[in-house]
Amino acid sequence: MSVETLGRTSDSMNIPAEQRAPTPEDIFNAINSYQLTEAIKSAIQLEIFTAVSEGNTTSATIAKSCHASERGVRILCDFLTIHGFLTKQKASYFLTADSAVFLDRRSPAYLGSAIEFLLTPRLRECHDRLTQAVRRGGTALGEGMLDPENPDWVKFAQGMMPMMRRSAEIIAAELRRGGEVHKVLDVAASHGMFGISVAKQNPAAHIYASDWKNVLEVAQKNADAMGVGDRYHLIPGSAFETDLGNGYDLALITNLLHCFDAPTCTKLMRKVRTALNAGGRTAIAEFVPNPDRVSPPTAAAFSLTMLAASASGDAYTFNELESIARAAGFARVDLSSVELGLDRLVIAYR
Amino acid sequence: MSVETLGRTSDSMNIPAEQRAPTPEDIFNAINSYQLTEAIKSAIQLEIFTAVSEGNTTSATIAKSCHASERGVRILCDFLTIHGFLTKQKASYFLTADSAVFLDRRSPAYLGSAIEFLLTPRLRECHDRLTQAVRRGGTALGEGMLDPENPDWVKFAQGMMPMMRRSAEIIAAELRRGGEVHKVLDVAASHGMFGISVAKQNPAAHIYASDWKNVLEVAQKNADAMGVGDRYHLIPGSAFETDLGNGYDLALITNLLHCFDAPTCTKLMRKVRTALNAGGRTAIAEFVPNPDRVSPPTAAAFSLTMLAASASGDAYTFNELESIARAAGFARVDLSSVELGLDRLVIAYR
Repeated sequence: MSVETLGRTSDSMNIPAEQRAPTPEDIFNAINSYQLTEAIKSAIQLEIFTAVSEGNTTSATIAKSCHASERGVRILCDFLTIHGFLTKQKASYFLTADSAVFLDRRSPAYLGSAIEFLLTPRLRECHDRLTQAVRRGGTALGEGMLDPENPDWVKFAQGMMPMMRRSAEIIAAELRRGGEVHKVLDVAASHGMFGISVAKQNPAAHIYASDWKNVLEVAQKNADAMGVGDRYHLIPGSAFETDLGNGYDLALITNLLHCFDAPTCTKLMRKVRTALNAGGRTAIAEFVPNPDRVSPPTAAAFSLTMLAASASGDAYTFNELESIARAAGFARVDLSSVELGLDRLVIAYR
Repeated sequence: MSVETLGRTSDSMNIPAEQRAPTPEDIFNAINSYQLTEAIKSAIQLEIFTAVSEGNTTSATIAKSCHASERGVRILCDFLTIHGFLTKQKASYFLTADSAVFLDRRSPAYLGSAIEFLLTPRLRECHDRLTQAVRRGGTALGEGMLDPENPDWVKFAQGMMPMMRRSAEIIAAELRRGGEVHKVLDVAASHGMFGISVAKQNPAAHIYASDWKNVLEVAQKNADAMGVGDRYHLIPGSAFETDLGNGYDLALITNLLHCFDAPTCTKLMRKVRTALNAGGRTAIAEFVPNPDRVSPPTAAAFSLTMLAASASGDAYTFNELESIARAAGFARVDLSSVELGLDRLVIAYR
């Protein structure tokens, strides 16, 4: 869970499990861990972090600012403190570094909107049916999140943009070091941030964004807002079915391959490869677990989301991504060492 | 969360938040923390831990034993490993010390049944309405879990007994050191474990158990099964309204006071005090947070459950419990240093 977990605030809990008497405490907390989901959701909805940032530090003043009860705010803020999203000194609450950057609505990196997608009812329902999903080996709710034109992908485009923004900028800068690009394909562009960031780093580049029509409306709006709208072109429809064009120096496939099984990924990669110029590259941004599949924790844990919410998606190791790309005809596949946060950058060379 | 949290499995995540660049990772994981609830629920339902304990260590053999898919089991077991409920060596999974004791169905301390109460739909619905609860300062779902004769309390009595068993035995032993008892009142007896444990430590003691009629059926069954049924007596109905009798050497009020506000607790304690003999004691088992209200983590976090699921309940500090007991007329109130696990033992002397 969080870096500043429950375990960090209690001395007794910092004893590794194997060195103390068995206790049901961790299991009790694991069963109840959905409460943290609800608490952070409530805090975002009530704009608790924004209120604290504005100088309201006691439960009374935060409550007034958030139009909530003092008792409710006190209990919620204590809970957020226990889980490391606030600090507390006497009766006053303060933001942590992460909360100040990401949860204060006035911060440019505010990402509270992520709950609109991450906690969309369909995704939670997928997880509610996890036992069935484990039984059958894939989502127990239709096609999971991959039902055609699922409106949740508009929520993704709208809500997840802030969480992706920094890694999109880092990837664009890293790719720019590999040479300027002029024609760029952004497969499953979503909010468009990855392609837009490339457009900003490459002033002559035109971006061709592929995604569902309703999703591309969000991407075009973002491209316009970020001043690259005149170099932004739309390819509405499924990337598997539409004509993606050709002559690309660069293709972007970000947070998409995890939705599909390896043969389907290979099929898509093959199609993308044929759309590239001779010297073209495909940049893949993905959760990439280590070969042990249990580290790093956030990337490795993402497999569960795919089990619950897709028929056969997964978080792929680098070796698996390399096999997929090679099977699709790519000559070389590199795992970039650039630090993105949750994702890793993989570059496949035509 | 768990002692072996995500944070412990990654070096980069072990850097305290204040000493590294801000990252949305902890917030992403907090929003998704409901997934751990679903994962541990699925593992209990599928009897994954029992299968591992029986010598099935690969996803293929566990899957066969649990009538599930290999892919689903692999992803679920990796997720449980990330969160510290299994360990993994190459492609083999093993139980942790806690999992072996508490999650293997063949273990005498198995407590998987706790999910039947902790994840009952009404309690989750209470938390789903947390934002409203914070606004109003109490549950946003009727009386929360305290609707009269809520059938979930039968689930509590059936499901939570194993989680309470050890602390019930420790409390009974500790109380025995304070003198033998002959007539004991168990207020809101639920599964009955606290009173039954006292009966076992005091061979002449008769236990009078107060709770809803449907709940007392569970307690009587447990008393019979543990050989004290002939010294077990039922007082069906609300402890606030029924005649509790008198002449008690000892009263037990376990995991009950947190359901109510302080005046209501005082009222109940006053009624219980009048039922005691001159030298009588009342033993209170409760989540008792420190005065800072954010430690120890599990006890302090319990306030959120009360905000979501009751009109005005709370996790009370020792000072608050002492005030409640003194206002009810008790002469002395002690916080026992005995180690129970989640709860603390408070003894109020008439």
